[in-house]
Amino acid sequence: MAAKKLRLGLIQMAVGDDKVENVKRAVSLIKRAVENGSSLVVLPECFNSPYGLKHFPKYAESIPQGDTAKALSAAAKENKVYLIGGSIPENDNGQLYNTCTAWDPSGDLICSHRKVHLFDIDIPGGITFQESKVLKPGKSLTTFNIGEWKVGLGICYDMRFAEMARLYSKSGCNLLVYPGAFNMTTGPLHWELLTKARAIDNELYVAAVSPAQDKTADYVAFGHTMAVDPWGKVVSAAQFEEDIVYADIDLSVVEKMRQQIPILSQRRTDLYDTISKD
Amino acid sequence: MAAKKLRLGLIQMAVGDDKVENVKRAVSLIKRAVENGSSLVVLPECFNSPYGLKHFPKYAESIPQGDTAKALSAAAKENKVYLIGGSIPENDNGQLYNTCTAWDPSGDLICSHRKVHLFDIDIPGGITFQESKVLKPGKSLTTFNIGEWKVGLGICYDMRFAEMARLYSKSGCNLLVYPGAFNMTTGPLHWELLTKARAIDNELYVAAVSPAQDKTADYVAFGHTMAVDPWGKVVSAAQFEEDIVYADIDLSVVEKMRQQIPILSQRRTDLYDTISKD
Repeated sequence: MAAKKLRLGLIQMAVGDDKVENVKRAVSLIKRAVENGSSLVVLPECFNSPYGLKHFPKYAESIPQGDTAKALSAAAKENKVYLIGGSIPENDNGQLYNTCTAWDPSGDLICSHRKVHLFDIDIPGGITFQESKVLKPGKSLTTFNIGEWKVGLGICYDMRFAEMARLYSKSGCNLLVYPGAFNMTTGPLHWELLTKARAIDNELYVAAVSPAQDKTADYVAFGHTMAVDPWGKVVSAAQFEEDIVYADIDLSVVEKMRQQIPILSQRRTDLYDTISKD
Repeated sequence: MAAKKLRLGLIQMAVGDDKVENVKRAVSLIKRAVENGSSLVVLPECFNSPYGLKHFPKYAESIPQGDTAKALSAAAKENKVYLIGGSIPENDNGQLYNTCTAWDPSGDLICSHRKVHLFDIDIPGGITFQESKVLKPGKSLTTFNIGEWKVGLGICYDMRFAEMARLYSKSGCNLLVYPGAFNMTTGPLHWELLTKARAIDNELYVAAVSPAQDKTADYVAFGHTMAVDPWGKVVSAAQFEEDIVYADIDLSVVEKMRQQIPILSQRRTDLYDTISKD
């Protein structure tokens, strides 16, 4: 595949209570995504565990020593593919994080991203959640390269924070990937809108990858895994059920938009800027 | 009307070639908007002139000495209303700007905002425009207060620049007003999406106010004047024709969203920030 093009395989997988089964299922879906031509495969947020405070301590593992990380490494190597391992609850010496890993086609860990913005919201009659009761937040932004592509990683609630995406585009990213699990309150309101907003404000591709919906779960995910192009157009998307979303993305689309509506160079950095304190 | 509530009257007026007629029409529509209960009336971008490089020098006036500014002052005073005068081509000692004025119910000029980001884009087969060939850009952001409301002003292309809106929300704005004239290429793509994106990223109301569509004009405006609430929901909107969009906005909606999804206080300012260099 030409360096300027990638086929994304975005796995909207069904996640259950059995960790071993969840990981097996992920490995099997990665294989299928690669058989269908994906050069970068992405799993959803919290793919080895149900999403919920009570589950995180029980399902957490160390990275890269834990069984889930080992299985991801092996799957990347076996399928010779770049793999973004959605997220899992990470246990680092008793400290828990919500962590995304990225693997290269040799099975080596490229980087890991700990969710920077914890999901603490309270919508009475809608959704109340306090990730910070159990998890610690990450302390840095995370990018990696696949040829000419530079990928910025975020997890779910990170999507709501425009500065994070802006810093990614300033650092040269042309693709943002957010494993995420919005719910039936925030999903219909903001999942697609945020994905498109990040894309057009930064003139890059954005992939948002959710677990499939399980109506019997404590936390019911919205699904609607999607890839959006720099113009804010949906390239392809799933609905609620388990599915693999394939999206052919093309660097020339990014380059063309940045040339035609050159907002990234027209930013009035004499008047303002987004700065990193990292 | 309680301090926490405002009725916006967003005037999607038909703009023609005759400046005197355009101003008359604006004054008449302001009167109607106030008769229908508006406490803040907004005109569209470039309401006294057709939108186009060749028109700007011819229609430009000084502010506040020019006839258009005088008419706006008189209309605000006569109707005892806050008035945002869309924009007009401003001539300041031979230097041209695209400028928005705001007037209080005594007819006094509160502030004026010169478009900060000039509209320079080139979409072959779509729209090519180079405002910077004729206009100079403004050098500052502009806010003003109406009781507990703090209003941030931008003009059209300013909408595309997330940092400007972020600085407004950081400074306490709860309402952004963008007189703007998107076209039939960028309008269907981004007008509504940008309006909603600014609203949810900053958890405030956004009003985007366009001229009505004139299919015979050089530059065909998209219309679709709208007010969007902090959740990204359209409060009310016009289509292509001349219309006044009324939107009842409520500060408690802003306060509630900022409490329920408190992203403005959850921003990781230890890792990043948007800074003003103004």
